[in-house]
Amino acid sequence: MELLERKIMEEGRVLSTSVLKVDAFINHQIDPVLMDNIGLEFAERFSGSGITKILTLESSGIAPAQMTGLHLQVPVVFARKRKSLTLNDQLYTSEVYSFTKEQSNEIAVSHEFIEAGDHVLILDDFLANGQAALGLLHIVEQAGASLEGIGILIEKAFQEGGNLLKNKGVRVESLARVASLNSGRVQFAEKVGAQ
Amino acid sequence: MELLERKIMEEGRVLSTSVLKVDAFINHQIDPVLMDNIGLEFAERFSGSGITKILTLESSGIAPAQMTGLHLQVPVVFARKRKSLTLNDQLYTSEVYSFTKEQSNEIAVSHEFIEAGDHVLILDDFLANGQAALGLLHIVEQAGASLEGIGILIEKAFQEGGNLLKNKGVRVESLARVASLNSGRVQFAEKVGAQ
Repeated sequence: MELLERKIMEEGRVLSTSVLKVDAFINHQIDPVLMDNIGLEFAERFSGSGITKILTLESSGIAPAQMTGLHLQVPVVFARKRKSLTLNDQLYTSEVYSFTKEQSNEIAVSHEFIEAGDHVLILDDFLANGQAALGLLHIVEQAGASLEGIGILIEKAFQEGGNLLKNKGVRVESLARVASLNSGRVQFAEKVGAQ
Repeated sequence: MELLERKIMEEGRVLSTSVLKVDAFINHQIDPVLMDNIGLEFAERFSGSGITKILTLESSGIAPAQMTGLHLQVPVVFARKRKSLTLNDQLYTSEVYSFTKEQSNEIAVSHEFIEAGDHVLILDDFLANGQAALGLLHIVEQAGASLEGIGILIEKAFQEGGNLLKNKGVRVESLARVASLNSGRVQFAEKVGAQ
């Protein structure tokens, strides 16, 4: 997605060969117009998939998920990190290991909000090693719902997450695919089958 | 706001005389069309205030802030709970005490994203004792920015937050004001000066 790639070039910051900081428009400050365009793009890409629900993870997935949900006219559910929950509902839970923080987080979704008949689109800001996506996928499976695909803002194509998911037969749509962060520069992957 | 009040009556659940659960459309599942309407309503109420930035708190404030930011065409910043930050930027920080969880959380905003010239609209899902709003206000003060007002989805008008803020001269716009949760029922406050 041209607009997102341009934003990454202009306002993203390469902190190391594996860390791209996008605090200026996704993770801390949000560009609402960019998010609207991102939502529209996902809505178009998944328009034929009969999506009934969008599932994301607090916090950075919420803004793009809200916009995609608005354009597809379906509800959005954000999985909560366990410690943010005050109530003991019946929950689907999953462990998500963060390589950056070197710790596991339990994420949870109430039984009420994903059902067996749902056709789910998972959305997240980053895809790197795929742990968050796998955790969300595990929740969809527990609910007996169908996963229609995973939408990602920025995929680090040099890490294993994308292949891990595709090898499971999951449709992955990444709006920007970063091939390398070497030498302090963002290099995007060649677009395969791009218009 | 009629639409929000109706949603609260239909899908909110009164768990005690002080707890109203709105997980079905705000805190865990999000109704994106409702959020769009909420964003539009805040944008109209604050249209003459020269807002340059919206400040909210992760996670439940993000969706309404995204929509308000989109309608006002200004960036949104969400304060992060300290433990979710991986980088040691220069931060404005504030302590927010949660009466529900009986613990303090440190919230933080990077110096980069709120500046002295900014005219800030603070948004949050609930206003009860006012601790979260005061924490965000404290961050605006540290940045030397101007606070133009606080937008709240649901104010528990039987708790002290609203008066605490109004006594500081802050403009508070609450879309739904709950007067009481007694006997398992939601009773809204009389609308003062409502159309």
